[in-house]
Amino acid sequence: MAILGIDIGGTKTMVGVAEASGKMLAYKRIETPCAFGPDVNIKATIAAAREVIELARVIVDVIGIGCGGPLDRKSGTLHKVSNLPGWEGICLTKIFGDEFGARAYLDNDATAAAMGEAMFGAGRGVDHIAYFTVSTGIGGGIIINGKPYRGYGDNAGEFGHTKISPDGPRCNCGDHGCLESFASGTSIARIAREGLSRNPHTILLNWIPSPDEVTAALVARAAAEGDEFASRIWSEAMYNLGLGVANVVNVLNPGLVIIGGGVANAGDLLFEPVRKVVRKRAMPALAADVEIVPAANGDFTGLMGAFAVAMEEPVA
Amino acid sequence: MAILGIDIGGTKTMVGVAEASGKMLAYKRIETPCAFGPDVNIKATIAAAREVIELARVIVDVIGIGCGGPLDRKSGTLHKVSNLPGWEGICLTKIFGDEFGARAYLDNDATAAAMGEAMFGAGRGVDHIAYFTVSTGIGGGIIINGKPYRGYGDNAGEFGHTKISPDGPRCNCGDHGCLESFASGTSIARIAREGLSRNPHTILLNWIPSPDEVTAALVARAAAEGDEFASRIWSEAMYNLGLGVANVVNVLNPGLVIIGGGVANAGDLLFEPVRKVVRKRAMPALAADVEIVPAANGDFTGLMGAFAVAMEEPVA
Repeated sequence: MAILGIDIGGTKTMVGVAEASGKMLAYKRIETPCAFGPDVNIKATIAAAREVIELARVIVDVIGIGCGGPLDRKSGTLHKVSNLPGWEGICLTKIFGDEFGARAYLDNDATAAAMGEAMFGAGRGVDHIAYFTVSTGIGGGIIINGKPYRGYGDNAGEFGHTKISPDGPRCNCGDHGCLESFASGTSIARIAREGLSRNPHTILLNWIPSPDEVTAALVARAAAEGDEFASRIWSEAMYNLGLGVANVVNVLNPGLVIIGGGVANAGDLLFEPVRKVVRKRAMPALAADVEIVPAANGDFTGLMGAFAVAMEEPVA
Repeated sequence: MAILGIDIGGTKTMVGVAEASGKMLAYKRIETPCAFGPDVNIKATIAAAREVIELARVIVDVIGIGCGGPLDRKSGTLHKVSNLPGWEGICLTKIFGDEFGARAYLDNDATAAAMGEAMFGAGRGVDHIAYFTVSTGIGGGIIINGKPYRGYGDNAGEFGHTKISPDGPRCNCGDHGCLESFASGTSIARIAREGLSRNPHTILLNWIPSPDEVTAALVARAAAEGDEFASRIWSEAMYNLGLGVANVVNVLNPGLVIIGGGVANAGDLLFEPVRKVVRKRAMPALAADVEIVPAANGDFTGLMGAFAVAMEEPVA
């Protein structure tokens, strides 16, 4: 059996082919240029998928798709996805299913990533998992009794939009004080950018020609080198991320929290402060139960998630 | 089949007997004077249970017990329960099981209450429920796919200790900024008490001889009568409660939030502002999915929960 996995993000799309064991046979990463709309992007995705299928020399039996929500899992259709303008109403399962002559399944990308980590990654053998993706935004996926938990309307796990401070900064969602507005990659970059003019001695200004080019990854690197300004920005963001994780731990009492996404590439610089805040601020019994670890699938977390989406469903 | 239900709280204990349908045959409420320790209280509970059994003329087949946690459900033993000092290590299932010659089951009181509402109350037929008890403290219970969700270590649902403001007031748990420190009955009373000296015109001072006697119920009553001071205290507490509920909605995407406990007796005065905050501050799709309703079992929510605990387990 061969699986085609498609992970559609706001800036990049990954396609890959795997065996039923999750062993990847081939993959390709392409840009997702939002401005060109869904038609151009979907054509590029199909072309990339044809390449990997040819490379792997397989016949596709089933297709799994992970994409940012909100979406309607049952019909395979996107709602108004904030980082994919113009894709509303697109039925991804029909498009890719027809194209490759196989049944296709769609799920929220963070839920898919959680499933991928539970099946093939850091969560193997753990019943209760909360998965955080910390990248452009902050998403969440929940595994309960070894299975994805999606809630009443298939939208559970909006960890990024839990409030950790009611009067905090404005979030992309339009509300204020969301975890995402304090600790996502975009927010860390924004907070740094806003502070740069008042901090002319930071090493960041040696690395970038203009404040507009600051990224969370650069803030992390400068913090690792001991830069005072970057360290302050970074540790505040990690404190806030820790609070958000502690709240989810207090609700779900998971045995494992897995953190993936670009910001998690900072490694110990992220995990050490976050673990410390959770130990201190989640309820003691629940803090003692939980391990907090990086996503084992790394940059492939989304793609492995797409494979997991295909595998969860019974194949006809 | 007859069920003996025992709901042990920090200030009162309810015992009752019910049929398998959940139909209550008899009940009794007794005080739980903490200062006298577990022996005295357990003896009084046993005596009350004998009374209701005699009154109902049944033979007890199974016993369900709800009690504040943390506790070890599998062994039926209490850990260090904050509102029951001295009860640590007490195996309630053995004591009551031996006494009445029936198998006994123990669960966290908020989880039990959620189960009772799911089986016999406002949650009948709903798969995904978040139950809040707002009284002395704030507790939570989670129903997922129609069954109690307890998490990795049986302690899921610590809604009262999610942080809604990281630098908020000190909570009984020792941390700061917990939902409970803003919106529990005890906290509403504390906040009112602290403000009374600066607000000599509030109607509250006509009702009570000393600020020490202010309660959340009195604040609610004064707010309902249009008292400015009480209205401000009450609406801030309800705003904060709404934020806490919105966060749980964002994590769990429940179809139903049920709120019970003494503070919920304020009725619309609680439900209207809380619904408004959730509509505004949970993610729109998730806010649209959720109904927020009072516990249907009212003052018997805990006792009905104890019956539900007995019924969840297979009876030998």
